[in-house]
Parts: sequence; C-alpha cells; structure tokens
Amino acid sequence: MSDRLVVIGANAGGMSAASVVRRRCSATEKEILVFELGHYTSYSGCGIPYYVSGLIPEVDDLVVRRPADFAKRDIQVHLAHEVVEIDTAAQVIKLRDLSQGTENSVSFDQLLIATGSRPVRPPIPGIDAENVLGVHTLDDGHRLRRFAGKGAEVVVVGGGYIGLEMAEAYVEQGCHVTLIEAAEQPMGTLDPDMGARVATALERVGVQFHRNTSVEGFVLGQDGCVREVTTSAGSFPADVVVLGMGSRPNTRLARAAGIEVGETGGIVVDAHMQTCVPGIWAAGDCVQSVHRVTGRPIVIGLGTHANKQGRVAGINISGGDAVFSGVLGTAISRICSVEVARTGLTEREADKAGLSYTALTTISRSRPEYFPGADEIVVKTVAEKPTGRLLGAQIVGCAGSGKRIDVFATALWNEMTVGEIAQMDLSYAPPFSPVWDPVAIAARRASERLS
Amino acid sequence: MSDRLVVIGANAGGMSAASVVRRRCSATEKEILVFELGHYTSYSGCGIPYYVSGLIPEVDDLVVRRPADFAKRDIQVHLAHEVVEIDTAAQVIKLRDLSQGTENSVSFDQLLIATGSRPVRPPIPGIDAENVLGVHTLDDGHRLRRFAGKGAEVVVVGGGYIGLEMAEAYVEQGCHVTLIEAAEQPMGTLDPDMGARVATALERVGVQFHRNTSVEGFVLGQDGCVREVTTSAGSFPADVVVLGMGSRPNTRLARAAGIEVGETGGIVVDAHMQTCVPGIWAAGDCVQSVHRVTGRPIVIGLGTHANKQGRVAGINISGGDAVFSGVLGTAISRICSVEVARTGLTEREADKAGLSYTALTTISRSRPEYFPGADEIVVKTVAEKPTGRLLGAQIVGCAGSGKRIDVFATALWNEMTVGEIAQMDLSYAPPFSPVWDPVAIAARRASERLS
Repeated sequence: MSDRLVVIGANAGGMSAASVVRRRCSATEKEILVFELGHYTSYSGCGIPYYVSGLIPEVDDLVVRRPADFAKRDIQVHLAHEVVEIDTAAQVIKLRDLSQGTENSVSFDQLLIATGSRPVRPPIPGIDAENVLGVHTLDDGHRLRRFAGKGAEVVVVGGGYIGLEMAEAYVEQGCHVTLIEAAEQPMGTLDPDMGARVATALERVGVQFHRNTSVEGFVLGQDGCVREVTTSAGSFPADVVVLGMGSRPNTRLARAAGIEVGETGGIVVDAHMQTCVPGIWAAGDCVQSVHRVTGRPIVIGLGTHANKQGRVAGINISGGDAVFSGVLGTAISRICSVEVARTGLTEREADKAGLSYTALTTISRSRPEYFPGADEIVVKTVAEKPTGRLLGAQIVGCAGSGKRIDVFATALWNEMTVGEIAQMDLSYAPPFSPVWDPVAIAARRASERLS
Repeated sequence: MSDRLVVIGANAGGMSAASVVRRRCSATEKEILVFELGHYTSYSGCGIPYYVSGLIPEVDDLVVRRPADFAKRDIQVHLAHEVVEIDTAAQVIKLRDLSQGTENSVSFDQLLIATGSRPVRPPIPGIDAENVLGVHTLDDGHRLRRFAGKGAEVVVVGGGYIGLEMAEAYVEQGCHVTLIEAAEQPMGTLDPDMGARVATALERVGVQFHRNTSVEGFVLGQDGCVREVTTSAGSFPADVVVLGMGSRPNTRLARAAGIEVGETGGIVVDAHMQTCVPGIWAAGDCVQSVHRVTGRPIVIGLGTHANKQGRVAGINISGGDAVFSGVLGTAISRICSVEVARTGLTEREADKAGLSYTALTTISRSRPEYFPGADEIVVKTVAEKPTGRLLGAQIVGCAGSGKRIDVFATALWNEMTVGEIAQMDLSYAPPFSPVWDPVAIAARRASERLS
C-alpha cells in the first residue's frame, strides 16, 4: 500500500521536496498531497521588485511551475487551503478550504512543514491598511505594481535588500520615493562603512533617504488607507507604504503542535531536515540552519537554502540519505548600477561571536586601468587573528563585482586563510579583471596586515 | 656594504620581485639592477589584442610602470640591454648595450632570471618576414596595429586564446580574417566539444575558420613580405600573418649556464622560486610550476603566475620566507560576446594523467528564465571516479559566465567533491543567477551522475 506524504506550503522548500520524492518514488509507492494557503505554487518572490519596476511584464512570469505541471507528475497541489492544525500523535492535519469554506482532515505518514516566512509588521495603528504592503506573495506583487504610477508618493520602511530593491523599482517607474531607515546606514547586513556606500548610490538615483529615523504612526484617509507616514524626521505623504523590515519564520502551526522552535524563531531541524518529531520534516524560510562560521543556529530566508533543504528532505523522506551542510549568509543585490554582496561574518557579527579579527577595506578596479569600463570595486574582508582564517567578506562595486562574493564563499566554506586565498589561481584577462583579481588583492592586503 | 640583486627581464616576474625586494630592503641594504632586452618595462602583453582592435587608443596605455617610476624607488632599469651569459661560479653576467653596441660585465650577489617566453615560430621559409608577427612585445603591438586597416587580409595561425583574440580584434577593424587551426576545434586548452562552441562564435562574427588545416608555406613578394599563406586547405592572401601557436619558455641563458631546465622546457625551481644554483632565482613565463591536480610540472605563461612568483622570489631574496603554491591552469577569454574559461584538467588531460573520471556537460541559464537577458551558460565538469573529487571545469557562455570559473578554481584548490560544491552557499538574486547557480547545477548533476 502506498503511504502518504503531506506537504504544507507550495513554494521553494515544499515543491523541491515533493519533486525529489516523486523522482525517487512512483505514485503507487507514495502519494503526495500539497496544501498551499495562497494562490500560486513555486514562484520567485525575489522577482517581485523587477515586476514592480516594469522590467518583467506579467506577474505570472514569476511562476516557475503551476499546479497543472505538478499534477502531471502525480503531485496534487491544493491552493487556497489553510492548514489549521497538525496532530502529530494521530498523524493528521486539519485544514480549511478557503474557496469553499469547508473543513476536513487528512492523515499523513510523513509531513513536511514548508510554511515559509512572513514580513515583519510592527504593531502601529494603520499597519493593516490596504496600501501598506509586504513584498512576499504574488498577490503583494499585483498590489504593489498597481501603485507604480508616475509621480506616486512611495514610502519604503526599512533599507534592507528588499526595501532597496523596491525603492529602486518605484524610482524607475517615475515615483517619488522616501526610504525610512532606523539605523545610520541602509543594508544592515553589511557593516556601516560599506552601507554608507550603498546610501550614496541610493541618493544618486533620487531616493530620499532618511537615516536614524523611526516610523511613529500613520495618518489614515477616509477610505481607511494610509495618506501620510509620521516619523521622527517629519511626515511624508504616501500613496503606498512598502514594508522592508525583514521577515520571520512562519511557525505558528509547528509551535502549536509542540514541534520545537529555536531561540532564532525558526523550527529546529537536524542536518537531515527532520524536526524533533520523527516523520515530520521542515524546510525553507521557516527553519533555522547552522551558520558554518559561528557554528550557531541562524534563520536566513532565501530561495537557495529552501531549494537545497527541500531537496535534502525529499531524499531522506524517500529513503535516501542526504544532509544539509549549513549556511554562510551569502547574499547579493543590485541597487541601480551598484552591486552589493556579502558572505560570512561582518565586523559586527564577528564581535558578537566573540572572535578576534582584523577588518580591512580595499579599493581596487574591475579591470586593468587601461581597459575601457574599469571601475571601482570595494572589498572588505574580516579575518581571524592571529590565524588569518577568513571570517567574512563584503563587496560594493560596479557591474561584475558582486558575483565575486562566490569566491569568498567557497574559500569560507573551506576555512581558508586570507594568505592562501591570495595565492589561488584565479582567472585573468583584461576584459575581466586586473592581473591581480580584486579578490586576491583584498586577501593579499589582509594577509600583509595580519603578518 | 650593500649587496646587489641583478634581475634579467623587466616585465611581470622581474619587476614584481624587484618591487617587493625594494619594499623590504633600503637602497643601502640592497642595490637592484634590472636589464631588459626590449624597450618597455612592466607592460600588459595580454592587452595587445585590445590595442589592435582599437579599444585601447595608445600602445603606451599598456605600460603599467616606466623606468622612471622604478628609478624613483632606487630600482635601476636598463632597457635595450641583452644579457649574453651568466657565469654562476664567478657570479657575473655579461651583457651587451644594444643602443651603444658596447659590452661589459656586472657582478651579482643574487640573480633573478625572468626572461619570459617567446612565440613558437615553426621553421617554415619566410617565417622571419617582416609581416609575420607574434603577439608578445609592445613592438609587436605597434606593428600588428599598423596592419589593421579596413579590408586588410589577415591570416591567424593557431586558434588558442591569443589567436582568437587577435582574430576578433582584426574583425572589429573591418579586416578579412582567416584562422588556420591544425586541430578539429579551436581553443585546444578546452575539450573539443567545448571548442566546437567557440568555433560557432568565431564563425558568427565572420572569421573564416579552417580546421584540421596546416600551414605548408609562405609565398613572398618582391619586398620579402609574405603575400600568401599556403595551407593544406588552399592558399590565402595575407597582408599580415599572426602567430598564435603558443609560446615557449626563454631558457637559452639558463641552459648555457648549467641551470637545470625540466622536460617541460621551463627552468626548474623549488617552491621558493630558487633554481638548482643557490642565490639564482627564476620567476614568470620561463619557469615550470607544479600543477596542483596532477602534481606534475607544467609550463603556463600567464601574468598572474609571473606576478605571484616574482613576489615570492622577492620575499625570499630579501630574507623572508614565502612559497609559490602551484597552478591549476585557470584561464579566461572573451571571444566576441562569448566568454570562455577553464581550470584544472580537461577530459584529455585527465586521460593523460591516468585518472578515472566522469565528464558531464550541463546547459543552464545566466539568470532566471523570466528575467530579461537570461542567456546560455555551458559548463563541463570532469570529476574523479569514484571519489567525486573535481578535476576540472570548462565554461563557454554569455556575458557573466566566465568569471564563474573562479568558484571552480577555488573548489579545486581545496580538493572539493562535486557533491560538496553543489551544497555550497553561493549568492543568488534574479539579476545575477537562477536560484541554483549554473556552477551548483553543474556540480549537482555531476554528483548525481556519479552516484
């Protein structure tokens, strides 16, 4: 008799797992049922800013695979179904069909929780107004795009990746964009000296950037929509308010079922992606992962991890043996023409981890001086003292800078020292880099500084 | 009393060493004399094709540092001086001042041989004609550019990096370019299946590519210049013939002095860059290096190695302790809009090294399908059987593909398996890559193939 896998959540983590299980088990061996609260499967949330900017014409373009695609492979996806309870002892979930208004129960042999995350919404009166939007689901995408008219007043709250990408998107649509950031610099995942370089890029494209500013309230119109955002730096008119304050793992169901959730707020899983309850697995933005540099748990909501974790869970659910090897906190973004990337620990994070380190910022060029298009790349390295082991790297620079972070990520994965990194055989030709690649220059200087 | 370092050759290897020594030792501690056969110091030979194409306006732009720059730092460079003999016992070199026609001797306490390489010139009558040119010195650059007139007939012999870059350069100048290649495919440092993709790119820009073709002779005009190149595939008119058949280490002086030269044709040095004679060092294109994957000696003439080796030699010459850690054979080039890169071993090289392996070619995209500008990246991996250890990678693809080779190079440096590479935390955002980076996709598929 076939046993049944139930998956809660039809995005990256859930559908990667479902797909891998189906590749490894026929439909007679294993039935796969997926329940999704929203209206889409497997979509690219990261693509929303580019839909809002007009670069991507249709929101549907962001959908990678549809329920019909999965149905062909005997993976049954039910959209607009809210799972309201997990009974771990009885191995049953209770769910609500939102379109029909009906409720029922489904039993499972194995369960994968892939409930993702949700945007942080501070408890300010008016935060639930129709024109205060997160950047999360494709339904958000639809609504965000509707406000992207020329001359519209946009207030973005929070200057992380999403906030900045949305600020740029609306600028490209001819809107007037105000960015409210509680800290001194945007991009809090970088050190402030690197964040300052991003602030300059933002201001250059016309974003009104307000640092050290907190939102104090919303002024609502008669229609219940926010008309004005009140902050510690004054009031700003708003046709739409975009929440870019990060997201938190969606763990309500797991908590209620007695499944362990860590101090990070993410579901606790082992390297096999199994929760504390045998047969119940979790993957994606809702779980915590191990940071390979600190060895501590961390929550990082990112499609790359969700896909890998889903794959690992799927292999294990279908009788294989795979492990998820942890994260480095690698991230990349493009803010107008400036590329921003990071991996490992910032100075701040190294401090927090109690590590002794040297931080060094190196300015180099993307190409030899004589080559057209040579432009600036700023690389900051954080290296452990006295070992020289790389702890982290940050890059802010011209086109072609950002993806160099992957070299640092690979070095970090292998616990290389900055001295070793400087010795590596990296590629060189004038259209691609100076004879010493910016990565090697930064590592060499850091190594010289340490010795 | 100050002792004296004599350097033979004023390009990457020699001048890196001289600069490092001067940084570590004052002029009263160590005198530094450099003798250079040609007319330039520290220039970018790799930039010559871009000068010929017109992208770089002046050949002088390719000179990174001039004798006057070095003189300010008490490094005395003598151009147009040919060293004719090294007397290792007496610690003296004999040299000829080419501009004055005089000869004299200079003693040394330490000697660095950085004589570089020279282009291969097959012994065909006419090969020494004025319009048969290597792509090596800036004097070559001057002459090559002079032939870059609209409608000029250019015959490039040899389809390696230099040959292809020169073919493209002349096409951009409106010349009619014929490329003669002895093998089935161009770019012999790639496997033929990857080379075939480069051939397609070449033909697309209008290069007349003749595979499996050998040069049989030159037809000379009354002025002694080549007018026609006779090949196994017919005759081709030629205003200029470009030699792109690779280069060989320049070891005449070293051999004559009894300094050991390896079977590879490169000077034998230890990891400190010292030759078999204590106090005599060598660096750059004239030496052999250790290939980190095979453990065998190999000659790779490339500015990146020359710079690193010069630096290592300089540190050791000035009483420090540094080692050169070997090479991976990483290389990159841009042929029109196609980026080409490689690191480690090709299938052919893995065969030659007697390794058991699986090769796999993966076609993926530079960005998510929905993102404008998503284009093809072809990645070929060679992984050891049954361990899964990466042996090498090759990339042919659109803009933004090539530099991904550095991730493979870093993985190779650390002896990672393809399975581990697929697990790594590489950066992702829609303008930069699909959610699984092409590197991770290739590694994952290779790992699946192996298991």
